[in-house]
Amino acid sequence: MSIKIGILGYGNLGRGVEAAVKKNDDMELVAVYTRRAPETLTVASGAAVKSVSDLETGNEDIDVLVICGGSATDLPEMTPKFAAMYNVIDSFDTHANIPTHFANVDAAAKAAGKIGIISCGWDPGMFSVNRLYSTCILPDGKDYTFWGKGVSQGHSDAVRRIEGVVDCRQYTIPVPAALDKVRSGADPDLTTREKHTRECFVVAEEGADLARIENDIKTMPNYFADYDTTVHFISAEEMARDHSGLPHGGSVIYSGTTSEGTKHVIEYSLKLDSNPEFTGSVIMAYARAAYRLNCEGQSGAKTVFDIAPAYLSAKSGDELRAHYL
Amino acid sequence: MSIKIGILGYGNLGRGVEAAVKKNDDMELVAVYTRRAPETLTVASGAAVKSVSDLETGNEDIDVLVICGGSATDLPEMTPKFAAMYNVIDSFDTHANIPTHFANVDAAAKAAGKIGIISCGWDPGMFSVNRLYSTCILPDGKDYTFWGKGVSQGHSDAVRRIEGVVDCRQYTIPVPAALDKVRSGADPDLTTREKHTRECFVVAEEGADLARIENDIKTMPNYFADYDTTVHFISAEEMARDHSGLPHGGSVIYSGTTSEGTKHVIEYSLKLDSNPEFTGSVIMAYARAAYRLNCEGQSGAKTVFDIAPAYLSAKSGDELRAHYL
Repeated sequence: MSIKIGILGYGNLGRGVEAAVKKNDDMELVAVYTRRAPETLTVASGAAVKSVSDLETGNEDIDVLVICGGSATDLPEMTPKFAAMYNVIDSFDTHANIPTHFANVDAAAKAAGKIGIISCGWDPGMFSVNRLYSTCILPDGKDYTFWGKGVSQGHSDAVRRIEGVVDCRQYTIPVPAALDKVRSGADPDLTTREKHTRECFVVAEEGADLARIENDIKTMPNYFADYDTTVHFISAEEMARDHSGLPHGGSVIYSGTTSEGTKHVIEYSLKLDSNPEFTGSVIMAYARAAYRLNCEGQSGAKTVFDIAPAYLSAKSGDELRAHYL
Repeated sequence: MSIKIGILGYGNLGRGVEAAVKKNDDMELVAVYTRRAPETLTVASGAAVKSVSDLETGNEDIDVLVICGGSATDLPEMTPKFAAMYNVIDSFDTHANIPTHFANVDAAAKAAGKIGIISCGWDPGMFSVNRLYSTCILPDGKDYTFWGKGVSQGHSDAVRRIEGVVDCRQYTIPVPAALDKVRSGADPDLTTREKHTRECFVVAEEGADLARIENDIKTMPNYFADYDTTVHFISAEEMARDHSGLPHGGSVIYSGTTSEGTKHVIEYSLKLDSNPEFTGSVIMAYARAAYRLNCEGQSGAKTVFDIAPAYLSAKSGDELRAHYL
């Protein structure tokens, strides 16, 4: 008997979740739900495509609904709404609003006897779990998070909004000297500029003022002004040939002490060929947990902090202890 | 109100736990329990030293007993015995016997309404958790564990038993080329010899046959025969000066795929100045979990797989979500 998965939203993340379902023998993709006209959408796996209005009946036969929307406006509304009908999971990542989102999902899920897992993926998600484990093990220590090398979709989008820009791919790159210093256990104080550089590959409109575009990028507040940024202008062909993937990754490095003169360094790092497929894969492991927790009668909002690792696996406790401990 | 910790056994690990208690504001070390005559033992923190027979009354006022004994004979007897009286935690690491040990501790702890956490530390422990997370996220993948560079106490002890050897420190060292290949996502098949080398620093008796000792080491079945081993003879002074620490570490590297042509590499690595102090620190985080689980009315044997990360922290769910997610 498979765990029946529904996907709401078919962008990069929805496709990543679809790929992940195929790698899990105990799961099946029941349907992709869309706000578009269902007949206009074909999905890679050939799964059924249905309208979000089908979902809103609350009668769809799915065990876990994966909500693949944006954190700005989609998830704050959708996750609580559907947590009142189904077990749900999302990748909400607007940090400042996590407490509110958690409370809203918790209230809806508890009232419905469902599980709602929020903020799942790798950051927030696996990086968060690793920050927490490390700080609990070594309370006298300091954590650092480095992102990249990888494509930041938010920064790429920001450049695309500049006049004269047709397309952009922005790579976030950790500064090697900063990484080395942190890995050595030196506990440096690092400014934003010292931790990461940014590199933009830009396709400009014909005849656009490239110097003005470059300046607009480099001085953009929040996104680029605090970083050393390199801008390359390339053709649409080069963009398609060299920058079609969405690789990402990074490291959570924690350095701490247990007694005078001792230093311990813990590092969790990811090198990902596809950010959305990996994120989708983390979400699938936690979707299994959502289903199992709900089968046990639990309800309410959860994060990666609240879920024991064994719940992510289809294997029994005996098998896990025998083969993974 | 502090969590009251008792330590049974005052070897390297017992001292590591003692150091870790001091780093946790919500814990206090009530007593170190010993099989020796208590008056012959002084402990670094100045905590009370009591006899194991005091513990056997079942009346000691401790919230969690940390059992710091050997996996061969001590823990199989001690952990179930004391799980019938106290919340307990151990670092049992004889892999083949984990199912039996778990069952014995589970029965005793359940009957007593106590929690017994077994096999806690970094391997088994944090390495196990990381193997499990990765395999759940990327079911189509492969894991590798590398140990070192670090001192293997088991291998050091094995060399010390050779005739003519006064002292030995054995370092386990991952082969850099193997690490590189695994980190690249190439999924190589590696033999034991290809993964690690071993380096021994040996103090020999005056006039001992060094060539024979070196041969005895290099051909020792299980411990050295399957490895490329280097042997250095040094003086007792050099041993004391250069090899007094117990550094260790290693990496769990997992490489997996989510679709044709994609590869993701997850690495969890540790660089530890003191193996026993870090192990003791992991144990303290899980001792807090043992106490909290028991306060909630739970009982029975648990491993790191069964415990949600939030239980390791003294902070509330709200605080964790606001600051670590």
